[in-house]
Amino acid sequence: MVLVATRNPLNIGAVARAMRNFGATRLRVVNPYEKAFREVRSAVGAARILREAEESASVEEAVADCGLVVGTTAVRNREIKHPLRTLDRAGAVLRKRLANERVAILFGSEKKGLSNEDLSYCHWLVHVPTRPEQPSMNLGQAAAVCLWELARGTRSFEEDVRQPVAAQRKAARMATVERITESLLVCLLKSGYVAARSECLAEEKLRRMMRRFALDEADAEVFLGMVRKMRESMERLQMARGE
Amino acid sequence: MVLVATRNPLNIGAVARAMRNFGATRLRVVNPYEKAFREVRSAVGAARILREAEESASVEEAVADCGLVVGTTAVRNREIKHPLRTLDRAGAVLRKRLANERVAILFGSEKKGLSNEDLSYCHWLVHVPTRPEQPSMNLGQAAAVCLWELARGTRSFEEDVRQPVAAQRKAARMATVERITESLLVCLLKSGYVAARSECLAEEKLRRMMRRFALDEADAEVFLGMVRKMRESMERLQMARGE
Repeated sequence: MVLVATRNPLNIGAVARAMRNFGATRLRVVNPYEKAFREVRSAVGAARILREAEESASVEEAVADCGLVVGTTAVRNREIKHPLRTLDRAGAVLRKRLANERVAILFGSEKKGLSNEDLSYCHWLVHVPTRPEQPSMNLGQAAAVCLWELARGTRSFEEDVRQPVAAQRKAARMATVERITESLLVCLLKSGYVAARSECLAEEKLRRMMRRFALDEADAEVFLGMVRKMRESMERLQMARGE
Repeated sequence: MVLVATRNPLNIGAVARAMRNFGATRLRVVNPYEKAFREVRSAVGAARILREAEESASVEEAVADCGLVVGTTAVRNREIKHPLRTLDRAGAVLRKRLANERVAILFGSEKKGLSNEDLSYCHWLVHVPTRPEQPSMNLGQAAAVCLWELARGTRSFEEDVRQPVAAQRKAARMATVERITESLLVCLLKSGYVAARSECLAEEKLRRMMRRFALDEADAEVFLGMVRKMRESMERLQMARGE
């Protein structure tokens, strides 16, 4: 579970409690309100999950070792640029992926949810269908519902036994995908495909596209090598021309 | 939803919020801590569910007009005298019954849960399976998980949700993928990633890899544009150097 810019310490505590209820172990927080995070972490009797919660300065860092990143959204008016699954449909997919790799589930701040930049690190989005009169959920409750759906009907849960790891393609780690995106962006800038002034927008678009490519780790490493070599070559050539 | 002897006003508020999220309408409280209940009910902006919450002196009175009464329990050491269903199994039964009659779901106090006397008014019990290390759930979260399960997959709900964009993704045509491969190969040759003498082997590898990328047509077109631009740029730069 990755909490981005959470304000309320009670909510961080509530998420941690639901994680313990349903057997999730790693809590990561990105740019929390410092005071809130310190408070909840140092509370007497704070659970191990909270004491061991990792703090990151960016979503990029928080999801670097994950093979799948899923953002949560209340939808509403925001224009959605990602594939979107309702929680009941997402559950089965997530349970399958969890058997093989680390999956990050991102929750945004209580007020604003996840930003478009946060979302650009996600492969797809999950939405808990709610009534139109009251679409927005409390953070602790949304986390509990998602965790329940992940744990729902899994054997590991009922018997406390882990599923055997299936031998199959392993998704690329986000750190590798991010390095590809970064080098590719440099190539696109140098070649004039992307203008300097629209770099940020291009970066978000590129990031979403790279996630749709569904790279596995081996291919991602090879592709990274290619993109880096092209980047070096372009840098060298431009240097030679004195650009 | 029937809350028996709830202590914490925040919890009553949280249950009401989850009810609004998932479309449950009637909240009944039995012997609440008076002050807590008055506080939450009279709060500025209290939802209609809270303002209209009915107070009863006994479970008997609170469930009098219901056709099915289900108690929630964390099980633990208590000797269970009732039929017990896990929430995932209970969901389908409850959804069916809800179509025809009023169903009461009872939640006990934060500390002690439901008493044996409370349970005696129940037809059967439902249990949210949790990890043995942390079996007890926060009341607001337990209510949210139960309500989600009741609402799960019902039609009225699905209609409120937008269709996933992923449904429209169309796989890239092989011609486009081939053009990407071709231009990328030129970039790789020019950058020195691929040596001229191993071009054929590299081409085959690259072709296989591009097919694993699972490109859709829109992304493939964009990616082709990128690769072509990089290729042109490299060609232009090398020409300028007289290579």
